[in-house]
Amino acid sequence: MTDYVIGLDYGTASARGVLIDIASGREVAAHVHAYRHGTLTQSLPDGTALPRGWALQVADDYLEAAEAILARIGAGRRVLGLGLGFTASSPLPCRADGTPLDRAFPADPHAYVKLWKHAAQPQAERLSALGGAWLDNFGGKVSGEWLLAKAAQIAEEAPATWQRTERFIEAGDWLVWQLTGTEARSLGFAAYKAQYRAGAGYPDVGIAGLDTRLSEPVPVGSPAGRLTGDWLDRTGILGPCTVAVAVIDSHVVLPAVGAVAGGTFVGALGTSAVSMMLDDTPPRLPPGIEGVAFNGSIRDLWCYEAGQASFGDMLAWFVETFPKGHTATESFARYEAEAAAIPPGARRLVALDWWNGNRVPHGNSDLSGLLVGLTMQTTAAGIYRALIESLCFGMRLVRDLYVDAGFRIDQVIMTSGLARRNALLVQIMADVLGCDLRVPEIENATAVGAAIHGAVAAGVVTGYAEGAAAFGARSHRTVRPDPGARDSYETLYRRYRALAGDPTLRETMQGLHDL
Amino acid sequence: MTDYVIGLDYGTASARGVLIDIASGREVAAHVHAYRHGTLTQSLPDGTALPRGWALQVADDYLEAAEAILARIGAGRRVLGLGLGFTASSPLPCRADGTPLDRAFPADPHAYVKLWKHAAQPQAERLSALGGAWLDNFGGKVSGEWLLAKAAQIAEEAPATWQRTERFIEAGDWLVWQLTGTEARSLGFAAYKAQYRAGAGYPDVGIAGLDTRLSEPVPVGSPAGRLTGDWLDRTGILGPCTVAVAVIDSHVVLPAVGAVAGGTFVGALGTSAVSMMLDDTPPRLPPGIEGVAFNGSIRDLWCYEAGQASFGDMLAWFVETFPKGHTATESFARYEAEAAAIPPGARRLVALDWWNGNRVPHGNSDLSGLLVGLTMQTTAAGIYRALIESLCFGMRLVRDLYVDAGFRIDQVIMTSGLARRNALLVQIMADVLGCDLRVPEIENATAVGAAIHGAVAAGVVTGYAEGAAAFGARSHRTVRPDPGARDSYETLYRRYRALAGDPTLRETMQGLHDL
Repeated sequence: MTDYVIGLDYGTASARGVLIDIASGREVAAHVHAYRHGTLTQSLPDGTALPRGWALQVADDYLEAAEAILARIGAGRRVLGLGLGFTASSPLPCRADGTPLDRAFPADPHAYVKLWKHAAQPQAERLSALGGAWLDNFGGKVSGEWLLAKAAQIAEEAPATWQRTERFIEAGDWLVWQLTGTEARSLGFAAYKAQYRAGAGYPDVGIAGLDTRLSEPVPVGSPAGRLTGDWLDRTGILGPCTVAVAVIDSHVVLPAVGAVAGGTFVGALGTSAVSMMLDDTPPRLPPGIEGVAFNGSIRDLWCYEAGQASFGDMLAWFVETFPKGHTATESFARYEAEAAAIPPGARRLVALDWWNGNRVPHGNSDLSGLLVGLTMQTTAAGIYRALIESLCFGMRLVRDLYVDAGFRIDQVIMTSGLARRNALLVQIMADVLGCDLRVPEIENATAVGAAIHGAVAAGVVTGYAEGAAAFGARSHRTVRPDPGARDSYETLYRRYRALAGDPTLRETMQGLHDL
Repeated sequence: MTDYVIGLDYGTASARGVLIDIASGREVAAHVHAYRHGTLTQSLPDGTALPRGWALQVADDYLEAAEAILARIGAGRRVLGLGLGFTASSPLPCRADGTPLDRAFPADPHAYVKLWKHAAQPQAERLSALGGAWLDNFGGKVSGEWLLAKAAQIAEEAPATWQRTERFIEAGDWLVWQLTGTEARSLGFAAYKAQYRAGAGYPDVGIAGLDTRLSEPVPVGSPAGRLTGDWLDRTGILGPCTVAVAVIDSHVVLPAVGAVAGGTFVGALGTSAVSMMLDDTPPRLPPGIEGVAFNGSIRDLWCYEAGQASFGDMLAWFVETFPKGHTATESFARYEAEAAAIPPGARRLVALDWWNGNRVPHGNSDLSGLLVGLTMQTTAAGIYRALIESLCFGMRLVRDLYVDAGFRIDQVIMTSGLARRNALLVQIMADVLGCDLRVPEIENATAVGAAIHGAVAAGVVTGYAEGAAAFGARSHRTVRPDPGARDSYETLYRRYRALAGDPTLRETMQGLHDL
């Protein structure tokens, strides 16, 4: 009988599952299921209005998606391991038995999952002001998107809800709990989103009763337990199916694209972009980099992370705002072709890629985008190319923070559908970074990465390197920098850095935001 | 028998003439004639190639235009006075009898009219470096577009041509000479373009033989002489036709729009914009303002001038680069309608209107345009509105230099076709300046202004005030600022000023230009 592993990728709008044949290493089935209630931003399902900026989800939607996907791809199969990636930080309050509070209190906004993009900003600022060693690996700053700030928000704004909360838990951990019957939290969520440190534990930030609502995490790749008999019955999966602890969705891709060793820099290019730097020496957070943890992304490695708040969405914005065809696809194709014909620097334009604010180096979502060098000779395609270049400059700024801090970088990987499809973007990225790029050729990389975590946890493979070789990308494209572009991009990048560091510009952007 | 005055407006591509009935004050005929050779930028008429950046014209084209226009509108009419406005500085070398050198030396590029936009930049920089009191009224800087720099260019690059040159003269003065048989130079050209000062004369800037090639100027509004018998014969005009000394084309409009007294600020809004400040007290050039002279624009007044290198052309650039319709007219109409619906500041965008470089306050044509505040919510119409606002901020920056220097401003006039047609632009201008604007309702204002100069010179009226009342605009629209827009624009304008003064931005722009 054939053996399989399953990977689940719980994104913002839907979940995706892949079934992999262990012997061949091939993906043999995949399925996507959208969440019934999507993201609640205007009102709760019963019509209760939500404050501006809120983003909630319904915990039971995740169970519905799990059942639909697992039944579709797993029924009748012998599945040895299952891993899952999940958005983070997306915590929910529940009872000691795992019952989410929104079942009993559907009219209470604080009873729902607070999705990653729901930001508890005032609470985050208060926590950051406390300071302390617990923030050393995060540049001294708590994000409003993280678990601690969201816990503080409930405790402060809805004390009765906080009173009823017996566990405050990331939705990924909660889903693993539902699948296995065991509350086994992931060190990934705990370290990156709740500032848990080995030895020191969770920080005491003065949120009454928080310690009793959390529990000790275990490293990623650890088995949480096995799929319960109830789930085997509901999905038709044949056991024994070991479930790995959950992984942050942006990190779970690493083994699928061959990022399993120190000295690897990975850019995951999507609507926004996340870059990860794997390292095997004690941590030293470069100023501006957002955070680092050990054993939280992949075993036995430090993984630093930094994001670009805008990436593919900025190009989509341009094409939708200034269409050059009847469809977005047609516009994209025309802009790409025209922009590709422009030599580096020929349009004498520089942009700051801050359409959604800036994460590195300023960590300020109020900042905004900029274009400079506009003349009567500027063309629309020239602006489009400047936007692509600015995205690459933003990635280089992050990469250079590591280089300047003395990190060893052996390989640079660019992954995602955008990286595979957009040849111009990746060529400019190679030119701007000035080094070879590996672009792995793999579909559903995030879900495949989750399956590798499941395989590691189940002992199907001895570790991530073997898992990556067995189930990850089988080929990659190497993109080499064009030596002729080097000087132009060095000059333009210096201009980009000067603009990014210009305090007058930041004051202007902040002032415009505060209007 | 009816008496008339004629005004001629010699622009860059063509000349326009208007015939005004003195008794009624009404324009009764008009005619436009394009220059046969247009502007020579690539090659001479015989095919001789020109260096990059050159812009020449053929002197005899002006005579052809004069004959065509005067015959068409003046034949059989008794014309008492004629005035003309002319581009400047557009000097030509000629013989002592007025024969332009290009007749005998058609293959010598230096024998032609050097049009205003032909810039002798290295020579200008050398002259500026000399320094001296002769530059006090011009902020210490000679422009490459001015007569002195162009004389230096011929003397340096074509000594034989300079040797043959017996007079070096503005084309407007040369045309008056041809029409009257008398070399009578205008104080307007001499003061603004050759830094002539009453008492001190032309400056000695070390150009050998320059003094013998110039001659003493007279104030604007002075009679140069009468139309010669030959011209009366060729055009059919019935004399006696007194011809006024020529006036710089951007200044000649003043009496036509009612700008005849100190305390008047005039914005002439075209492809680019020129603003003029009339004042009746001794000059004190605010830093950044480009120049000032007495009796050179209108009699008995100081006229300060400052320009915006981009104005209407920036809006045309936007509409052509990002079309929103099948024709430019359709695109303009849509952008106007959408932009008009956006409340001030609602889009949180600011632009620097430097698409053609900046004149005030930096006097650097290498600078370029900027947009800041771009987000995923930014719309195309929002950008269009930000461009309009930036043009108005640029005008306010100039106006505020006078206010800050203690000038009295009694009225603000905005003139041109653009000012009359573009209601949104003028309303935003009123909101940004925070004061009432007068928009005179008059066609062919520049040519009418020239006719008023002719009427003053001929004694048809006692002075400019009477001339303006008799022949200038008979009505105007008053545009009042919207009090509700005040706070938003004060805030945005402070941001604009901060950006305009930011040295990092200027270094970036210069660096991009020099790529």
